Amino acid sequence: MTFAGVFAPIPTPFDAQDNVDADRLRVVLARWMKSPLAGVVVLGSNGEAVLMDEAESDRVVVAARDLVPRNRGFIVGTGRESTQAAVRAARRAAGHGADAVLVRTPGFFKTQMTTDAFVRHYTAVADASPVPVLLYNFTALTGVTLAPAAVARLATHPNIIGMKESGGDIAQVADLVSATPEGFQVLAGSAATFYPALCVGAVGGILALSCVVPEACTQLFNLARAGRHDDARALQRRLVPLARLIGNTHGVPGLKAALHLIGYDVGVPRPPLMPVPDSVLSLLREALAPFEEVSR
Amino acid sequence: MTFAGVFAPIPTPFDAQDNVDADRLRVVLARWMKSPLAGVVVLGSNGEAVLMDEAESDRVVVAARDLVPRNRGFIVGTGRESTQAAVRAARRAAGHGADAVLVRTPGFFKTQMTTDAFVRHYTAVADASPVPVLLYNFTALTGVTLAPAAVARLATHPNIIGMKESGGDIAQVADLVSATPEGFQVLAGSAATFYPALCVGAVGGILALSCVVPEACTQLFNLARAGRHDDARALQRRLVPLARLIGNTHGVPGLKAALHLIGYDVGVPRPPLMPVPDSVLSLLREALAPFEEVSR
Amino acid sequence: MTFAGVFAPIPTPFDAQDNVDADRLRVVLARWMKSPLAGVVVLGSNGEAVLMDEAESDRVVVAARDLVPRNRGFIVGTGRESTQAAVRAARRAAGHGADAVLVRTPGFFKTQMTTDAFVRHYTAVADASPVPVLLYNFTALTGVTLAPAAVARLATHPNIIGMKESGGDIAQVADLVSATPEGFQVLAGSAATFYPALCVGAVGGILALSCVVPEACTQLFNLARAGRHDDARALQRRLVPLARLIGNTHGVPGLKAALHLIGYDVGVPRPPLMPVPDSVLSLLREALAPFEEVSR
Amino acid sequence: MTFAGVFAPIPTPFDAQDNVDADRLRVVLARWMKSPLAGVVVLGSNGEAVLMDEAESDRVVVAARDLVPRNRGFIVGTGRESTQAAVRAARRAAGHGADAVLVRTPGFFKTQMTTDAFVRHYTAVADASPVPVLLYNFTALTGVTLAPAAVARLATHPNIIGMKESGGDIAQVADLVSATPEGFQVLAGSAATFYPALCVGAVGGILALSCVVPEACTQLFNLARAGRHDDARALQRRLVPLARLIGNTHGVPGLKAALHLIGYDVGVPRPPLMPVPDSVLSLLREALAPFEEVSR
Repeated sequence: MTFAGVFAPIPTPFDAQDNVDADRLRVVLARWMKSPLAGVVVLGSNGEAVLMDEAESDRVVVAARDLVPRNRGFIVGTGRESTQAAVRAARRAAGHGADAVLVRTPGFFKTQMTTDAFVRHYTAVADASPVPVLLYNFTALTGVTLAPAAVARLATHPNIIGMKESGGDIAQVADLVSATPEGFQVLAGSAATFYPALCVGAVGGILALSCVVPEACTQLFNLARAGRHDDARALQRRLVPLARLIGNTHGVPGLKAALHLIGYDVGVPRPPLMPVPDSVLSLLREALAPFEEVSR
Repeated sequence: MTFAGVFAPIPTPFDAQDNVDADRLRVVLARWMKSPLAGVVVLGSNGEAVLMDEAESDRVVVAARDLVPRNRGFIVGTGRESTQAAVRAARRAAGHGADAVLVRTPGFFKTQMTTDAFVRHYTAVADASPVPVLLYNFTALTGVTLAPAAVARLATHPNIIGMKESGGDIAQVADLVSATPEGFQVLAGSAATFYPALCVGAVGGILALSCVVPEACTQLFNLARAGRHDDARALQRRLVPLARLIGNTHGVPGLKAALHLIGYDVGVPRPPLMPVPDSVLSLLREALAPFEEVSR
Repeated sequence: MTFAGVFAPIPTPFDAQDNVDADRLRVVLARWMKSPLAGVVVLGSNGEAVLMDEAESDRVVVAARDLVPRNRGFIVGTGRESTQAAVRAARRAAGHGADAVLVRTPGFFKTQMTTDAFVRHYTAVADASPVPVLLYNFTALTGVTLAPAAVARLATHPNIIGMKESGGDIAQVADLVSATPEGFQVLAGSAATFYPALCVGAVGGILALSCVVPEACTQLFNLARAGRHDDARALQRRLVPLARLIGNTHGVPGLKAALHLIGYDVGVPRPPLMPVPDSVLSLLREALAPFEEVSR
Repeated sequence: MTFAGVFAPIPTPFDAQDNVDADRLRVVLARWMKSPLAGVVVLGSNGEAVLMDEAESDRVVVAARDLVPRNRGFIVGTGRESTQAAVRAARRAAGHGADAVLVRTPGFFKTQMTTDAFVRHYTAVADASPVPVLLYNFTALTGVTLAPAAVARLATHPNIIGMKESGGDIAQVADLVSATPEGFQVLAGSAATFYPALCVGAVGGILALSCVVPEACTQLFNLARAGRHDDARALQRRLVPLARLIGNTHGVPGLKAALHLIGYDVGVPRPPLMPVPDSVLSLLREALAPFEEVSR
């Protein structure tokens, strides 16, 4: 199973009563399926998974599964703070048709999250999961780091086939590639550094930005793979301002606002998240303007 | 309702099958109720609340409620990442007999956790909660800070009566006291700086250390309140080494290990948390030795 | 030799041609000598010592020495990045009449500044210095920390008699007091936490704020020493807003601006430091207003 | 004047009496001049410039100038904390034959080092310097950042022709390239991320690692420029372990120790720097082994 290419970590629509809105989800997902994306991730960080309960999570997986054809990847985020909850979530996602699960590190008890603790946690999940496991490090949100030394140990597990590294630290991405065997798939999570991540050996990306400009992100991937480095560098540079607005500074509310501006009705963020203020809408509009694809 | 004095944020016992063990909980709680503690907190950070589901949380509250007499405080931790889940948890805790709820800041989406977002979140919880609300800031674990400016706004809500500040930054504690009206109760969460926190206006503490040496912690509180500052300073100094081992470096596993050493059977930590290694047991044994009360 | 009490780390006046202005220095120093200050520090961080060469430094010491009577402390900052330069600076300061030297940690090569490196550095300086040495930790400016373990080793040197800790971390101050023998003098450098530092055992302070309000700072010290903790706490609270403006946020330019507002002509900061903008002058004026002594 | 290619920031030899050793400097420099290096930097961070006085600095420049032929670049580090000292140092270095000066940001008064302060500082230096100026950002040592916004303003000065960015943050390097006009030369300072820095538009590097393996570093540069990205990535990966040992973890003492192991007699570090312990020597020996060039 390969995860080369660009995957969109899609947001979860909520309605005005703060409930999961499966109808809206189907509509927007159908539109993404007309783009060249290699696949989607549901219930990732951008899916506001930590704000939802288990029943809601299941509804999202079930609703989305039908819309994603078998020739695209369908990945489900199933990270939980406790090992037993992470095991159960992986099993349920597999039962509902996930191709793979993306398992964010637990991170609440920061000083206790040692390499040994991570290895035990992920081994338990990978042993139990009926589908392949992707590790997932997102230090900026979790405050912990799944270091190359831990990943090297976990990469030998037959059911752990890759990793998403959300940080923009290219040396870290390079280390992960070096520390793991040929075939272990490192996926970049930071759109602003997607091109250099590909330079040092990442095989693809799970990029919030690709929800908004799936074609440009896919093109960047294709240029880099074709060895057209000057063109790739130029396109990366064009994408940086939008990537920063969506991925980092304004988070899920920024992503949802950008999608609204280009006609994807993904509802409002769930509280405590607040919609972005009007000033950010203006910034987003400006940053979106250079991308023709978004006006279709 | 006053929270002056020392409260113990007690751990949750799990059995060998990784289930909540209500019987063990009753036994250890009965022992704490023989100490001079002003009350207890269940389902706080030290209660491993983030590793438990809602049904398990309810079982802990129900089991503990019976053991805590009405003349001691019974506080339940009900922080959740989503506002709607936090509202529901506060209502359920009140329904099961909590005197007050202790509501940790949501913290997953760090850059979005602005003062406005916190004010909206806590106002919704305080509006809905049948019992008084204590705010709860724990930057080292959450990565976000409920700043004095936000607390100043929230302190005017009639159902928000105080706050636990877990950080050891005494200037921050002093600022919280200054920023809030007379009667708003600031509680310290860091045992290693409990005495200077009392100096600058904290009215009490919720201290992991007080699970282990409830008498010494209570005595420190009483000395400071009586104006016996030299004695208070000396006792604080004696407590620091143990406070560091339990509260910071070794977290919940360190607390559970220390309790085992003095005869409280609180089971093992829930995975991904791991029991402390033998080397830490030795350090704990050494740090406990000077405290007579633990040998009873 | 005792350093109990409040010392002012005075700024160095520069004239419009960016030269040291010894005349202005004499005028302002004479005014400080009418206050109840226990003494002064020249060539500290607030003296812009790192922006001056050795000849300029000597001129400041010589000019100031005459104005400080023998019953007040006259401390000279002599920290340098290299050990040999620090040794020479201490000798020269002693030759020009310093009562003690205050030696900031070297900090350029951060990862190499281990406990062993600090012990070797300070031992060389203390061996060579004709006058007693005060250690000086200022992590916010240097990026390194002279930890309690290093201080404990150095405190046994007969020519190292105390330390200035500039950080506001009260637990750190308490640890320094605990780690060193009776008689080793810990001085606080953070005015916003001066009172709690005294609570945990500091014997005095070297406070930028005391250049501006020497009487209030001295009064705070006297209240704490007399056991009048409620009054001390109240005065500390009054001082915090001014302390923050001067000590932290606006640094030397803020200090010089505040002094100008109350009639001390200390000239402009040396470039690259820039004078504070008018908006900060307004904030300073407002924060100074409640202190009567400044209007004399 | 172009700085494309690889420059070695060479260390300064000190003798057993802790004095600058110009004879040793000449010997080692002659050897470097047999390598394919594009040039050298003297009195950079690796030259321990902050541990030397002005007279010593001049001796190093004079001694080195003669050994560097006119077809290689000869850059002198002239950063100082005060603007007036930085101006004088640039003039003196030019007078002694520097091709360009490399001017590290002042960084002692961290919160005051705003974009405006940096622009004023560097403009004064560039106005006064008889030779071109290279900006120099090294956040890990200085604690301040010369941000792309400041660099964009300074890049319009006719005497400011480029910049060294020592951080390994590739997004930052890319931003600097984007923010500055065609022809402004961004040089990488982090050997562990040299290849991705070239990918995003750096034109060369000033790399401590290139003191030790000048041929491998130059080859990496040539491979990237030739578009041989797979080979470049592979060579980068081989260089990372050695780059980490020398550049980051063990600093100047690590660099001097590595050079000793391969026959460059560069003396000991100046105190407070300490020689590396034997355990580090073993690590260095191991990391050097795969590089044939070092055994010549």
